[in-house]
Formats: sequence, structure tokens, C-alpha cells
Amino acid sequence: MSEFLSLIPPEDARERLLRHLHPRIDCERVDTATACGRINAVDILASHPLPEFARATVDGYALRAEDTYGASDSLPAYFKVMGDVAMGIQPNFQIGTGQCALIHTGGMLPSGANAVIMVENTQLLETDRASHLSEIEVFRSMAINENVIPVGEDVKVGEVVIKAGREIRPPEIGGLMALGVTQVSVTKRPIVGIISSGDEIVPPENQPDLGQVRDVNMHSLSALIEQAGAIAVDCGIIPDQKALLDVAARRALNLCDILIISAGSSASTRDFTATIIDGLGYPGILVHGVNIHPGKPTILAVCDGKPVIGLPGNPVSALVIARLFVIPVIKRFLGELQDRPVSLIAARLTTNLSSQTGREDWVPVRLHPTEDSHGWLAEPVFGKSNLIFTLVRADGFIRIASSANGLTAGETVQVYLQ
Amino acid sequence: MSEFLSLIPPEDARERLLRHLHPRIDCERVDTATACGRINAVDILASHPLPEFARATVDGYALRAEDTYGASDSLPAYFKVMGDVAMGIQPNFQIGTGQCALIHTGGMLPSGANAVIMVENTQLLETDRASHLSEIEVFRSMAINENVIPVGEDVKVGEVVIKAGREIRPPEIGGLMALGVTQVSVTKRPIVGIISSGDEIVPPENQPDLGQVRDVNMHSLSALIEQAGAIAVDCGIIPDQKALLDVAARRALNLCDILIISAGSSASTRDFTATIIDGLGYPGILVHGVNIHPGKPTILAVCDGKPVIGLPGNPVSALVIARLFVIPVIKRFLGELQDRPVSLIAARLTTNLSSQTGREDWVPVRLHPTEDSHGWLAEPVFGKSNLIFTLVRADGFIRIASSANGLTAGETVQVYLQ
Repeated sequence: MSEFLSLIPPEDARERLLRHLHPRIDCERVDTATACGRINAVDILASHPLPEFARATVDGYALRAEDTYGASDSLPAYFKVMGDVAMGIQPNFQIGTGQCALIHTGGMLPSGANAVIMVENTQLLETDRASHLSEIEVFRSMAINENVIPVGEDVKVGEVVIKAGREIRPPEIGGLMALGVTQVSVTKRPIVGIISSGDEIVPPENQPDLGQVRDVNMHSLSALIEQAGAIAVDCGIIPDQKALLDVAARRALNLCDILIISAGSSASTRDFTATIIDGLGYPGILVHGVNIHPGKPTILAVCDGKPVIGLPGNPVSALVIARLFVIPVIKRFLGELQDRPVSLIAARLTTNLSSQTGREDWVPVRLHPTEDSHGWLAEPVFGKSNLIFTLVRADGFIRIASSANGLTAGETVQVYLQ
Repeated sequence: MSEFLSLIPPEDARERLLRHLHPRIDCERVDTATACGRINAVDILASHPLPEFARATVDGYALRAEDTYGASDSLPAYFKVMGDVAMGIQPNFQIGTGQCALIHTGGMLPSGANAVIMVENTQLLETDRASHLSEIEVFRSMAINENVIPVGEDVKVGEVVIKAGREIRPPEIGGLMALGVTQVSVTKRPIVGIISSGDEIVPPENQPDLGQVRDVNMHSLSALIEQAGAIAVDCGIIPDQKALLDVAARRALNLCDILIISAGSSASTRDFTATIIDGLGYPGILVHGVNIHPGKPTILAVCDGKPVIGLPGNPVSALVIARLFVIPVIKRFLGELQDRPVSLIAARLTTNLSSQTGREDWVPVRLHPTEDSHGWLAEPVFGKSNLIFTLVRADGFIRIASSANGLTAGETVQVYLQ
């Protein structure tokens, strides 16, 4: 086996994998109320403008702005109050020259009116005896559309309001509801099958004998995969026997969109895992060995259109590599636009970290507030990649680029939260 | 009504609300496999060490480190291979002086062995004819525990492995499974009731008449609340009538842990909403009016131990204020430790922004990659706080502190992602 003869930089490895992936992006209709976190599948166009009618943004009087031109404290303009705009009802009167109507925030402007003067800028006068109408004095000049949301200011008819590939967040839910879109097409969650392999692995509910360990990766990976918007499927714990693993992998790949094999860690198992993956379909293995720590023995493959990823058995390596390679694959299946930034926390490194030039390192760190509480200190959490609690103790990771041979205490680093 | 006579800074307002909140934190048992994102309710102690037996971290030979002292290329040490450690099984032989056993990564060290030499540092010799055992040459000196994970290196027995109040993330799921903890006590999700009030509001599935608008806040707030780990309950759209709102608020508060009233926006509605909230229980309104934009008319109250929050009816204000005041309340009910940082994106502001000194401003921004793709530009998304699509077009918010009177184009700002 030519394992690790050529270690590939992580970015090239990911690029090579994604270049071979052209998944069909399936859609399903869901209630908008339940769509938060899903990915919008088709461009959504506004079937009508928002708002659909001109609305007041303050409490005051709706009037014609032109009639206020030149009004001031010393030379007020006078308006007859023609009525009161009830909320939620189209006013049944018009506003002409020298007329106005009482209106509340959110109320519909009566026809003829094009501005709303705030109550504070007016004075209510005695009711006119002849007309039985009250009258107001206006002390300032208004602009057309002042204190008004004109029709279509939020959204114009025909406008693309949510693009395909965009995540549906709370504001999108609100926006869709505002337009009356109570169902929405979202991309289907891809199904990710996970196989744990290893003669020593037992399910967590079992009491392991000496020499056995409970399965960690099936469950930590499932949680990560579900967080990323996919469906994780337990495809079983398979002993280190080539024939059994081969059958399990074929069956799982048949059922799933993406297959992950958390490989047994002995050299022989690593060897036959690669052989099995390579035999699952065309083109087979694209990358075997990534220049990264932890996670060097990673296998990336596409088999008859489906991605198959061989993760190292060590629980820390498995989670690091899943973040770097499985999540981008899931996002590709979800059709998610990749233009939003990843959240990072800037922190000051507490200690020197050495690393091997040419290799990219991911180091778990714990964050502590700085003394002035305005910033963060990043303290590396050291531990072998077999130790899952290394990550439980960590808030996130820092990346040491392959071009660097380490980082210096006091340097500002960017922390990727877990 | 003394509304807005004294506007309170947002941090003081939040502090005042949280100081009056002492919720009982209820727990429930859930399967660990489904616990991701929940908050651990009680300190979890390791009932046994991890690993439970010393394990090899490489493929090689388990031996006694002492027997290798002084070994070198020119003066190798010799070891008899007593057997092969099968994965998942306790070896049925011991290692004595000058003896070793073939072992794979993750295998259990045979009794007597305390180090594992990598295959690469050994040479397999001919099988000894007398004993029928193979023999190896070892070319270097080993330290005790070299290439070994000793018992308890990951977790010691009795150690607190996950503190109460800690979020259960993928590594915690893995760690719990490693310990055989397949069920876990998590804090109950608080129930947040939401009332939308306003004569002009209709459910999104209805066709609004002119003057009416579809309910946005019920649904955008529900999504935000569920994202934060609580359960959102639709307590109805209530017309602007004091008696109706009063009955609805009492009934909702009875059923829920937290009550949100997205208030009708006319002055009269604002007035009676405050009166109703103040009458729901002791001590009643704590804050009425926050020195913030958007969201000035916010009401914060605690009524007989339950928080009641009056949100502005404008959809942008409602979401901004819910992030600042409702989410911290939910986290308090979840008993979540507050020592993890909020993710922020550093970006360069594209344009000057003015703001009123003394008032804290939250400005929606859209992020664009910088020309070199190494950073982000934050472009403010201007729009009245009535326009929900302002937020759909935004990636997040920037905060202008109340001490500032604006921000300058080119300044580095921190963006809170939505």
C-alpha cells in the first residue's frame, strides 16, 4: 500500500474532493414556521409589494406636504381634521387641500395624503362651530413621504427577496410570513451513513471487557453532522474483517448520500479500509493522507458520485477532519451559498506552540477572559488525539498554517469555536 | 403615563431585569444521543478512568522500557516476541525481561510492559529454533509510557468531566458515550409565550385587506427563541382592546415561563400594554424605555417571578430587542454558564455612521469580502425599523456604543452575526 507516500495539503485535498462532487440537490416543501436553519431551494420573488399601502411611521396627522410649505412657529398652517384613521381599516375619506386626519403608527394613509406630521409639531385648536370639525395648527414644513413608508419601500413586486442557497434565519421567516409565503421549498438534508470499525469497539450501552472501548466516533460525529443540517445514520460497528467491512460499506453507500468510515486504527485495518473504499465505485480514492495534524491518515474518495470519507479512528482526529472535510461536503449537498463568513474569536496565545513546517496543525484551545475582561486568552489544551476529553475541555481550535513552524506566546490568534 | 421620561442604558436595563430573575431550573433525562445543544444540568463525574487499561498509540512491540536503556544502532537490544496482542482482548500472557509482544494502535498493553516501540525502530530477526519464538532487535532507548496512554490519562475516576451549565456539544456527546453515560440530565427548555397585538395584524395565511398587515413578529421571534433553546408558544393575535389583551396576557403568563408581548404600535396601545404588564404581578415593570435604537419603547418586567417583555411592534426593533433581552433571559432559565465568548467578525466599515451620543445603536450590516479576500467589509443596510427585509439583506449587526457619536468609514468594527 502506498499510504502516506504523498501527503496532500488540506486545502488541495478538499478542493480535489469537491471538484469531483456534483450532487443532485433535492428539494422538499416545508412549513415556513419550521424552516429555520434550512437552506432555501429556489429564488423567492415577491408576488406583491411590501408594504402594500402607504403607512404612517409616527402618531400624528396625515396631510398633503404641499399644504405645509412655508409653515413655521410664527406663521402656522391650518388644517381641518376630517377623521381618525382606524388601525387595520382602509380610510373611507380623502384628504384635500387644507385637510388632515388623525393617524397612528402603522395606519394606512388616506387617499390624497402624502406625509404625516408628528403630534408634537401640531397644536389642536377648538372645534369649528360651523363644520363641527376640529382644526390643528402646523408649525413646520413637511417633505413628501416624510414619516411615511411608501408602497414597496421594503420590497418591490417581482424582487428576488431570498436567493436559492441562502440559509433561512429568523428574519427570513418573518419576511416570508410578511409576504404570505407559509410554505417554502428547502433543500433536502443529505443522509450521512457512519460505520465504526474496530474489533475493540463496543456500543456505549455495553460494559466493555478489558481491551475493549466504547464507541465514541459514531456519536460525536452524528451530533456534528446533525448540527450541520444533515441526517446521520448509524450503519453499525463492524469488526476488523475485510469481507464484513466490504459488505457493510456497500450496503451503507447504497442507502446514504455520503458515507463515513471511522477506520480501525491498526495498520492492517487501515490498509484494507482503503482497498474497500477504492473498490466502491468510480473514481474511488482521490486523497490518501493529508498533511495535517491530527488526521494524517484521512481518505477522501468519490465512488459513483457519492463521497466516501475514511476518518482516523482517534476521536479528536475524527472530529477535526469531519469539520474540515465532511461539513463542506454536506454544505455542497445542501446547495448552501458559501459567501457568509465563519465566526472567529480573536485571542492572545498564552504559550509558544511549535509545529512542523509543511504540515497544517489544529490545536484545541480553551478561552479565558483577559484581566480587563475585554479580550480573550487562548490556552492550548494538550493531549494525544486519542483523548476525547481534550476537546471537552476546549472551546475551539486554532490553525497553524503549513507555512509556519509555530506560533509565539502573546500572538493574536483566531479561534474557531467548536 | 410616564413613558420614556427616563431612558435607561441597555446594559443597566438588562442588569435590572436579570437581578429580579431567580427561576427554578428544572431538569429532564434525555438520551445522550439526542442531547446536542442542550445544557447539562448536574456535574457529571467519571465513574471509572479513561482509558481503563494502558493502550498503545502506535503499531509496534510492547516491552519493558528498562530493557532498552542504552540500546542504539551500534548496540541493539534483543527481545523475544511472546505473542500478538489481538484488538479488543486482554492479552493472556505477561511480558518479562527481554520479552515483547506485537501490538497495534489502541491495543491493550500486556501486564509487565510499559512502553511500545514503533515497528520502524526495530528489526525482525529469524525465528529462534529452540523456542520457536521470533526475535527483534531494538535500536533505541525507550522512556516509560512512551507511545502508551496510561490508565486515566484522559479522565481520572471521580473527576468532574462536564460541569452543570455547560452546553453539550459533539465532543461532550463523545465523552459521555466513552464513559457509558447514555442518558443525561439536561435543563428543561423554558416555554416562551408570544402575543402579537394590533388591530391591523392578521395571520400570515390570511389575505390582508388594505390597511391590514400579516403577522411577522410571532414567527420571526418564535424562530429566534427556538434557536436559543426555548419552546415558543403562539398565544394569539389580540386586537387593541385593553380587556382582551389583559385576559390574553394573564392566560399566557399562567401557561408559560416567559411572556413576550409584541405591542401594538399606536400610543394608546403602548400605554395600556404597560398598564396591563404592570398589573400582572409583583414587582411589575422594571424598565420602560431603553436608550437604544431601534427599540426605545421596550418594557421589561418581572411579574410574580416570571419575566414579561414588551417588545416594540416594528419587526426590526422586535428582533434586535429580543436578542438583547429575551435571549439572556432564556439562558438564565436554561442555567447556562455565561463564560463562553460571542462570535464576532472583524470588518472594515464602508461608510460613516452618525449616532446620537448617549444612545446605543444597532445597525444592520451586510458583509462583503475585501478585494484580497482576506477580510470583510461591513456595509450598513439602511432602512426604517418597520422593514423586515432590512434584516433579510443583512448578515449581522454592529453596535455603536452610547459613548460614541458615530463611526468613521474605514474603522474596524465587530459584527454580531444574525
